Amino acid sequence: MAIPNKRVAILSPVAWRTPPRQYGAWETVASNITEGLVARGWDVTLFATRDSETRAHLHAVVERGYEEDSTVDPKVAEYLHISEAFERAVEFDLIHNHCDFMALTYTRLVNTPVLTTIHGFSSPKIMPVYQKYGDGYFVSISHSDRVSGLNYLATVYNGIDLSLYPLQHSRGDDLIFLGRIHPDKGVHLAIEVAHLSGWPLLIAGIIQDKIYFREQVEPHLNRQIRYIGPVGVPGKNDLFARARALLHLNTIPERFGLVLAEANAAGVPVIAMSLGSCGEVIKDGRTGFLVNTVKEAAQALQRLHEIDPTTCRENVQQRFSIDSMVDAYERVYYAIFDLETKRRS
Amino acid sequence: MAIPNKRVAILSPVAWRTPPRQYGAWETVASNITEGLVARGWDVTLFATRDSETRAHLHAVVERGYEEDSTVDPKVAEYLHISEAFERAVEFDLIHNHCDFMALTYTRLVNTPVLTTIHGFSSPKIMPVYQKYGDGYFVSISHSDRVSGLNYLATVYNGIDLSLYPLQHSRGDDLIFLGRIHPDKGVHLAIEVAHLSGWPLLIAGIIQDKIYFREQVEPHLNRQIRYIGPVGVPGKNDLFARARALLHLNTIPERFGLVLAEANAAGVPVIAMSLGSCGEVIKDGRTGFLVNTVKEAAQALQRLHEIDPTTCRENVQQRFSIDSMVDAYERVYYAIFDLETKRRS
Repeated sequence: MAIPNKRVAILSPVAWRTPPRQYGAWETVASNITEGLVARGWDVTLFATRDSETRAHLHAVVERGYEEDSTVDPKVAEYLHISEAFERAVEFDLIHNHCDFMALTYTRLVNTPVLTTIHGFSSPKIMPVYQKYGDGYFVSISHSDRVSGLNYLATVYNGIDLSLYPLQHSRGDDLIFLGRIHPDKGVHLAIEVAHLSGWPLLIAGIIQDKIYFREQVEPHLNRQIRYIGPVGVPGKNDLFARARALLHLNTIPERFGLVLAEANAAGVPVIAMSLGSCGEVIKDGRTGFLVNTVKEAAQALQRLHEIDPTTCRENVQQRFSIDSMVDAYERVYYAIFDLETKRRS
Repeated sequence: MAIPNKRVAILSPVAWRTPPRQYGAWETVASNITEGLVARGWDVTLFATRDSETRAHLHAVVERGYEEDSTVDPKVAEYLHISEAFERAVEFDLIHNHCDFMALTYTRLVNTPVLTTIHGFSSPKIMPVYQKYGDGYFVSISHSDRVSGLNYLATVYNGIDLSLYPLQHSRGDDLIFLGRIHPDKGVHLAIEVAHLSGWPLLIAGIIQDKIYFREQVEPHLNRQIRYIGPVGVPGKNDLFARARALLHLNTIPERFGLVLAEANAAGVPVIAMSLGSCGEVIKDGRTGFLVNTVKEAAQALQRLHEIDPTTCRENVQQRFSIDSMVDAYERVYYAIFDLETKRRS
């Protein structure tokens, strides 16, 4: 493709910095798209917290992420941040929204087309907004995370920066869990697998549900099963180096599951519940195992030798790299520009 | 003035129905303005919950108030409700906003002028939004509830429907408290006054701070001091019939204090802390007493015979009636129409 001559605004959330220091999947993806587009010559403005880091033009009205600074009011920050982008809509040929339903409510007040990547439907209560604005432009992050009635242009899998997660050439001894400490993520099921197998388990991630942690995780912590807190990229690589397998025994349909791709990039096999998008990310028997029960997860541990780390990484390279994601978004952007040209003529 | 030929949108909050069944000061004022304008021949569209009651055109996208129905998500309801009004901005010559800072973030995306009545600054955290949009059109509800840097066109006191609160021709024996059960409202100070005086105290209102109620109100309840729950208009009149005086010993500056005007309308003297707008609503020694301490409040009880109920009601009639409020808003509206005509010419 020729050098693009379009101006794009990327509207990242303001829960965390973009890119986030540790947790913050939506901001991670928004950052990867932004930097990928800049590298390809696009004129990109990133709307994000002021402490964000980017090679794009940064436009900020919120100092720090509301999850990182208790002096920032989430409601105030979101209203100020989102409206700021829409007030500047004429400066852009496209606004790419990563701020969920809130941003949709501004879309009909501007002429600039808005593409919304739906990073997940957090609650049935937000669906009325998506229904109202269903004729907008949408991208789903997996085939499984779709609802009817929305004008989806494509599914674009999240892409990760593979250089951050080098292939680990030897396999470790530990089972690892990496994610929010929340019942949805099945930390308690990972603990059951550790009990069944007798293998060590390292648990890392932010504690999102304190009661769950106190009641269903903490009582099991001992020499075999350890909680090490949240980790950033270096911490993840330390875990991958020690990992025999990543356990991702989610209890609700996964929307995408960035961590599955990250583990696979490092050559770590993933044992994941066959729920939601896990079957789109993991190739059963090739890059990990899809299971339906704790027992099946424990059985899969016996078959880890069948998984080739190089195959894991290659699969990520082809399907979940930043390059493949940015390729896909460029196609969506050009499709929107064509649709808009037709609509106006 | 001639019959107005302008179309006005009143944007009421969606916490409660408009008008509210019981508590809901902002919705009460929005309703009174709406009905007052309709009575004067204005073409008014009320944006409010679908179960609202009005003689104006009702436009609703939220079924019920989020404080009245737990299936309504406050964040979703507010985004949907507010944006709906702005999406229809071309249908109106003026949008009169009672939805606080959230609505301000849509104002620059439409050409219709927006007047915001600031019913109170709920937190210092919302001030950045007011600062950004300070060049809009604003009305304060008392002289004391102003901040610098905003383009205030007027102070318009809230008006009440005097027909709802008839003059009580005899004075009762009880002290009454009427308001949210919250430290800001000084329920604990009213209880102290009851203890000092030995007079009965009736406490009515929604429990907004449960811990405060449990720790600082409930332990004092007995035959002398009673809590009767939230009350609507009939319940308020029952209280006014039994009232010797209303105790309003607020601990932070009152923004306006509708209940002071309601009590005065019924001829009930008000003993209020000299904080915020209380001194604008109550004429010291004529319609009640302004005090600085619990001791002064108890002393004022000895002077209640000096207060003439008819004077109390006449003061409300002149300064805090719906008619006087709607008069004032009409003047503000015409001022805005003039300013807009000049701006565009």
